[in-house]
Amino acid sequence: MTRLKALVLLSGGMDSVTLAYFASKQYDVRLALSFNYGQRHKKELDFAREHAKRLGAEHRIIDLSHLCDLLKGSSLTQDDIIVPDGHYAEETMKATVVPNRNAMMLSIAYAAGISGGYSAVFTAVHAGDHFIYPDCRPQFISALDTALEIGNAGFNPQGLKIMAPFVSMTKAEIASTAHSLGVPLESTWSCYKGAALHCGTCGTCHERQEALWLAGVPDKTVYECPLPQFISERKA
Amino acid sequence: MTRLKALVLLSGGMDSVTLAYFASKQYDVRLALSFNYGQRHKKELDFAREHAKRLGAEHRIIDLSHLCDLLKGSSLTQDDIIVPDGHYAEETMKATVVPNRNAMMLSIAYAAGISGGYSAVFTAVHAGDHFIYPDCRPQFISALDTALEIGNAGFNPQGLKIMAPFVSMTKAEIASTAHSLGVPLESTWSCYKGAALHCGTCGTCHERQEALWLAGVPDKTVYECPLPQFISERKA
Repeated sequence: MTRLKALVLLSGGMDSVTLAYFASKQYDVRLALSFNYGQRHKKELDFAREHAKRLGAEHRIIDLSHLCDLLKGSSLTQDDIIVPDGHYAEETMKATVVPNRNAMMLSIAYAAGISGGYSAVFTAVHAGDHFIYPDCRPQFISALDTALEIGNAGFNPQGLKIMAPFVSMTKAEIASTAHSLGVPLESTWSCYKGAALHCGTCGTCHERQEALWLAGVPDKTVYECPLPQFISERKA
Repeated sequence: MTRLKALVLLSGGMDSVTLAYFASKQYDVRLALSFNYGQRHKKELDFAREHAKRLGAEHRIIDLSHLCDLLKGSSLTQDDIIVPDGHYAEETMKATVVPNRNAMMLSIAYAAGISGGYSAVFTAVHAGDHFIYPDCRPQFISALDTALEIGNAGFNPQGLKIMAPFVSMTKAEIASTAHSLGVPLESTWSCYKGAALHCGTCGTCHERQEALWLAGVPDKTVYECPLPQFISERKA
């Protein structure tokens, strides 16, 4: 049976990399799109490229870095705002919000999907993101999908849909999924600080360690400063 | 009274240029965004720059031209597809559809609006576009505005809205509006072919001549090959 064509938003982090392998089980993943929006952690893009290649998908980096000064207010794109340490689900993490990021990325992906005759645009938004990021919530994904369906009426013979299969999953469940699919999570990048190693203390490093620990998946990531509460499990 | 801050999607065509002047009556139009998506008629961008300057707004061109090959299928971005002649409201004009164009542009503008503390993003979609372009219809604008409101919940203290004041107006009504506002329409660009002069025969040149003729507004545009049915009125 011919599989339907899909494209994946692939940042190079553990969620979207897992998603790409997950989607490949049912779809013909032909295209992986990454975005350079001036983020500190551009390093993630190297991992995106690696996994797109493994999956046989074309990898494209959409360069929105010239918009950086228009997207001010986030620590991910501005050197003068510090990336906060701590747990993801905290008020301080609001400093990591890039306004309207998912709408921009999904709109561009959807355009490519309509042009290329694709049936699905996959995005790795998940339940752990909901507290801080409004554009990761199911209500948003659903509303945007509806809007784009209306906005492309008559030009969407493949019935292109935004697919967010992880939207109700925790990151620990994604880690379990990755493990069962054999995804090499050590070849993914989470840290918002984007230095040589994962820092271990920023919100997304915290979340990464916690998720792997909760899922009971060995964490092969090398952290600059790993969080002690997850270390014993990691060694086990 | 302090006026609220607004940004305008400004292509350099007669609709969006008129909109910019219209919006300036009530809002403090600080930013005008134009897009280079690989269109043949990049010439319009020069007119956008000129009017932004007149209105005292910062003008930014967002470069999406590197996406051009992902947005294939439109005569506006592909040299091997001919720009059709004829009336705008014809099936053949479907060749001028750039998939999901307004969602991409509005999502980026909305992001800039949230970051910059703006209250309104203005778009010049109008009733004459509805037949061909699904992303110019009021249902789409409304659905996208709802989606983006949900996607930025908690980060939108100014209550940013997408404003489409021309969405139910004909192009002739826009021409009348321009005339009453004193907008110099001869300094706007419509032609999809983007040569030295307006061709006079493509869909948008046809629509431009018809709109000015219907509105009884003198057409000072120089056309390569003006449509005879509108010539007598133009001379009058």
